Amino acid sequence: MATSLAQKSIALAQLLYGDRVELLYHPQCFRQSGHFAGDDRERIEALVEVANDPEIDAVWLARGGYGACRVAEYAIPRLNERARAKKWLGYSDAGFLLAGLYRAGYEHVAHGPMPVDLIREDGEQAVARALAWLVNGASSSLEGGVTPGHPNLAFNLTILSQLLGTPLEPNLTGHILLLEDVGEYMYRIDRYFYHVTSNANVRHCAGIRLGRCSPVLKNDPDFELSEEDVARFWCERSGIPYLGRADIGHDSANKVVPFG
Amino acid sequence: MATSLAQKSIALAQLLYGDRVELLYHPQCFRQSGHFAGDDRERIEALVEVANDPEIDAVWLARGGYGACRVAEYAIPRLNERARAKKWLGYSDAGFLLAGLYRAGYEHVAHGPMPVDLIREDGEQAVARALAWLVNGASSSLEGGVTPGHPNLAFNLTILSQLLGTPLEPNLTGHILLLEDVGEYMYRIDRYFYHVTSNANVRHCAGIRLGRCSPVLKNDPDFELSEEDVARFWCERSGIPYLGRADIGHDSANKVVPFG
Repeated sequence: MATSLAQKSIALAQLLYGDRVELLYHPQCFRQSGHFAGDDRERIEALVEVANDPEIDAVWLARGGYGACRVAEYAIPRLNERARAKKWLGYSDAGFLLAGLYRAGYEHVAHGPMPVDLIREDGEQAVARALAWLVNGASSSLEGGVTPGHPNLAFNLTILSQLLGTPLEPNLTGHILLLEDVGEYMYRIDRYFYHVTSNANVRHCAGIRLGRCSPVLKNDPDFELSEEDVARFWCERSGIPYLGRADIGHDSANKVVPFG
Repeated sequence: MATSLAQKSIALAQLLYGDRVELLYHPQCFRQSGHFAGDDRERIEALVEVANDPEIDAVWLARGGYGACRVAEYAIPRLNERARAKKWLGYSDAGFLLAGLYRAGYEHVAHGPMPVDLIREDGEQAVARALAWLVNGASSSLEGGVTPGHPNLAFNLTILSQLLGTPLEPNLTGHILLLEDVGEYMYRIDRYFYHVTSNANVRHCAGIRLGRCSPVLKNDPDFELSEEDVARFWCERSGIPYLGRADIGHDSANKVVPFG
């Protein structure tokens, strides 16, 4: 995470909420070890430290860059009741962690924008939307089809595929799954849908709603099916209700989807 | 499949084996429907027709382009004892089909070169190696670490990940898994290894051997770990023996690995 981006998010929180909100970044966010923001141990320790801190109300994943699956299984068993009481927010690869928390019975976990979204055009809107949910639980931040009392889960399609069959996989029975993806070829989206909709746990879900998948990389030859064609095809084949589009994606319009 | 490539493979078989071998391509191989060589129904019907034909000794997948997961579950239940007696050979996405056949108890299934490998430099060597196994069961075609009596399975890492939890997943208990990949970023290879080595079925395998993963796409920043570092890491973490390198990959040196 670039320090300039962190500063920008802190300034935005200050502007919107003044002294009511203090946004803190753990120093680990600015470390680097190859692909990751610090080695596995540093990232696990930082997450446990922040999550268990009684002075902190929420854990907002700074970015969802790959790596959460190296952290989640080690961190979650070390979290305490303070961690369980916090809000947790993020998306993309952070979905590994969110899935594991939800599986462990955490009740304040949501899929939604992260500070790193400030790099996007209109990124301030995404970050303000996330803050409104974190600070006030604003219903205006929620994805429009999310209705209270109906359990929802939202994931990046790739990440859901990669957590099925692992110790992070939550029970999906009766849940509506909102799935988005980014930067994949259509043949891969199709193959992920094969994998996900063939899974016994996923087949017990209440339905799938498709978020945005843009950008889709250019398939050669043209795949001829759109992402919605693909989602409908696999839902029909697997007997899962296809419930239309969802207002989530790797973009500034990405809305908040509380888990459960 | 280009007709010129098919002709080249037929000429090679003729050169090597004369009238002893007749290489036939089903007309479906030359069809096109978007990404695929014909629509799903055409591909399923062609496979069932060839597999059940008593005049044919082997089914050699022409290429492993994406699509087998749209075919395998529909085709396999329609295959007869003639299909079961045949040799089956292919790799890459064809692994979906090979996995499903092995799960169904087929005893002559192998991971190895396909006619499409003629597009590669020294591709004739790969195709000749495949033919030697198909025609004579030549032991010189086999991967060097494959020893009789020790069950082996070989897959593209991505394909294994995408068939876990589906009706095509075979029982892996006691098998040595040979895994290769192609054209992936190292962070994806790492994530696939997380997924695969976290799976309960995979954890009952006798060990993993790592084939080639080249080309690996350039990671930014540098991932710092090689594919072998990654394989060792996840094997150690999951308690699966790491058994060294395997002589398979998306290249002309790709050796034959009989399943079982």
